[in-house]
Amino acid sequence: MILNEIIENILSASNIILVTHISPDGDAIGCTIAMYKALKLLKKDVKIFIDDDIPDVYKFLPNSDKIERPYDKNADIIVVIDCADKDRIGNAQELLKKDIISVNIDHHISNTLYADINYVDTNAASAAEIIYQIIKLLGINFDSDISTCLYTAIVTDTGGFMYNSTTAFTHEVAADLINNGAPVSYISDKIFHNITYNKIKLIGRALDSLKLYKNGKIACLEITKKDLDETNSKVSDIENIVNYGRDINGVEVAILLVEKDDEIKVSLRSKEKVDVNKIAQIFGGGGHIRASGCSLKNSLEEAKIQILNKIKDIINEG
Amino acid sequence: MILNEIIENILSASNIILVTHISPDGDAIGCTIAMYKALKLLKKDVKIFIDDDIPDVYKFLPNSDKIERPYDKNADIIVVIDCADKDRIGNAQELLKKDIISVNIDHHISNTLYADINYVDTNAASAAEIIYQIIKLLGINFDSDISTCLYTAIVTDTGGFMYNSTTAFTHEVAADLINNGAPVSYISDKIFHNITYNKIKLIGRALDSLKLYKNGKIACLEITKKDLDETNSKVSDIENIVNYGRDINGVEVAILLVEKDDEIKVSLRSKEKVDVNKIAQIFGGGGHIRASGCSLKNSLEEAKIQILNKIKDIINEG
Ligand SMILES: [Mn+2]
Ligand SMILES: [Mn+2]
Repeated sequence: MILNEIIENILSASNIILVTHISPDGDAIGCTIAMYKALKLLKKDVKIFIDDDIPDVYKFLPNSDKIERPYDKNADIIVVIDCADKDRIGNAQELLKKDIISVNIDHHISNTLYADINYVDTNAASAAEIIYQIIKLLGINFDSDISTCLYTAIVTDTGGFMYNSTTAFTHEVAADLINNGAPVSYISDKIFHNITYNKIKLIGRALDSLKLYKNGKIACLEITKKDLDETNSKVSDIENIVNYGRDINGVEVAILLVEKDDEIKVSLRSKEKVDVNKIAQIFGGGGHIRASGCSLKNSLEEAKIQILNKIKDIINEG
Repeated sequence: MILNEIIENILSASNIILVTHISPDGDAIGCTIAMYKALKLLKKDVKIFIDDDIPDVYKFLPNSDKIERPYDKNADIIVVIDCADKDRIGNAQELLKKDIISVNIDHHISNTLYADINYVDTNAASAAEIIYQIIKLLGINFDSDISTCLYTAIVTDTGGFMYNSTTAFTHEVAADLINNGAPVSYISDKIFHNITYNKIKLIGRALDSLKLYKNGKIACLEITKKDLDETNSKVSDIENIVNYGRDINGVEVAILLVEKDDEIKVSLRSKEKVDVNKIAQIFGGGGHIRASGCSLKNSLEEAKIQILNKIKDIINEG
């Protein structure tokens, strides 16, 4: 039992360092802080090191202010959570070269088993499901801090219990966390229901521009400089707006064109069939099969025609 | 035990009519079809009557094609599900005047206890949590049809496990339904990632109308007849659009006003402080503390002023 080996190592350690990946998400942050609180209850000397900024949205989490950026080089054990590859922990990987027992707790199928003790459960919808079990095995009673952090980790990594990864166990853990004080609507309000007025107005503008092409297989959204100015929005506010196009029934590829000062920023999303990474690469961009982006030095109208034609060609071939 | 009395009455009946409210939502539809399948497994003669159209989004549910609109006048028992008031069942309320045992199964705090046997559990996040218990008490093994319908009912009535009403029991039921074949990502794709082009255009119109009042504590959205016509939308397409208002940071109460032929339909949502059930009741409507609705026989502008003034008063008092 690898989990038991991890428990024994944690229980016999005095100084423990918790680490997670850069660009930390709700699972990464929620798990490390939950574990921090649990180990504090065991009177351990614990530190959390994350080699990146913490997004504001997660700063409501209890003990999120305990996350540090500089690294302490002394510890009995380093526990790396939710991290597929040691490069993803940034400068904290220096600690793995030292004479410190390293533990890798993760749920990514791409995990490279880089630690002394590796526990990777790819059936877990979030690392939080594993941390939940570890805290239980450590014999700690869940308090509302721990429950809040782990519930947040679960809702963020499952898209609010919607992704395919969500299992009966995910819900069982959620139920237990609520029983131990996780405040459901407070957490969802902080995570999902916390949009700015400007962003909502910008979404409205983008949806007004929505047009379908190729018998409804392509959705195209546009955001002009005028839209950004008149809604007091920044280019960073456009995150995820392209998903409104992808979520339309029948749509295979969604395009969002954003007019910047000197170029058109293009976001591409696909559902099941089209490789939008290929399309982005044609225009010097890239990304993943289902989500990619590129930039074009054209007018918005010209960029739209070029991208649309390329996607139409690919849909015709497919 | 009222539940046992309901079980006995159902078991001893041969002909059963299931009814739910007009403007049926996922909970209303999911529960009646789940109950239909359960009673069919018990070899009962069952009919589902809903005095309204079924939104297309729910037509993926197994046995949704069994829902009828004309009323059969003969039955041993009529079971009304998820319906606070008998007026909300439309013409089907004629059945309540007949010599048929009526059962009212609901979770709305505003329920008027209009039936012979009334079971109202206001702690249930959805009627589905009660129907789940009833089907269990009937001794039926959950199949994937029943599980799919109840899981859909739960995710729609809890906004994807996000509303304050979500409890540990909600997740326990969800876990059991997944174990019995509810396909999580299939259901979330159908419900949340399967928007019609018309609905997206309607959302765009509603967001364009968005205005904030009372230092950003009240958000107001409007949908005119012109918006409905020009986007080819039906009143059923408006479901959940009010949430865009509630999700803005700083907003306490969101209002959506929809212009119908002869009245203004008002949806109200609140975050933490305001009891919007009380507000809806002032105008002859009702619902829950955080989600309610009413109708006003005014112009859209006049209805907006009346509702806004009432909410402003309540926020001032609070
Ligand atoms: Mn994760
Ligand atoms: Mn309901």
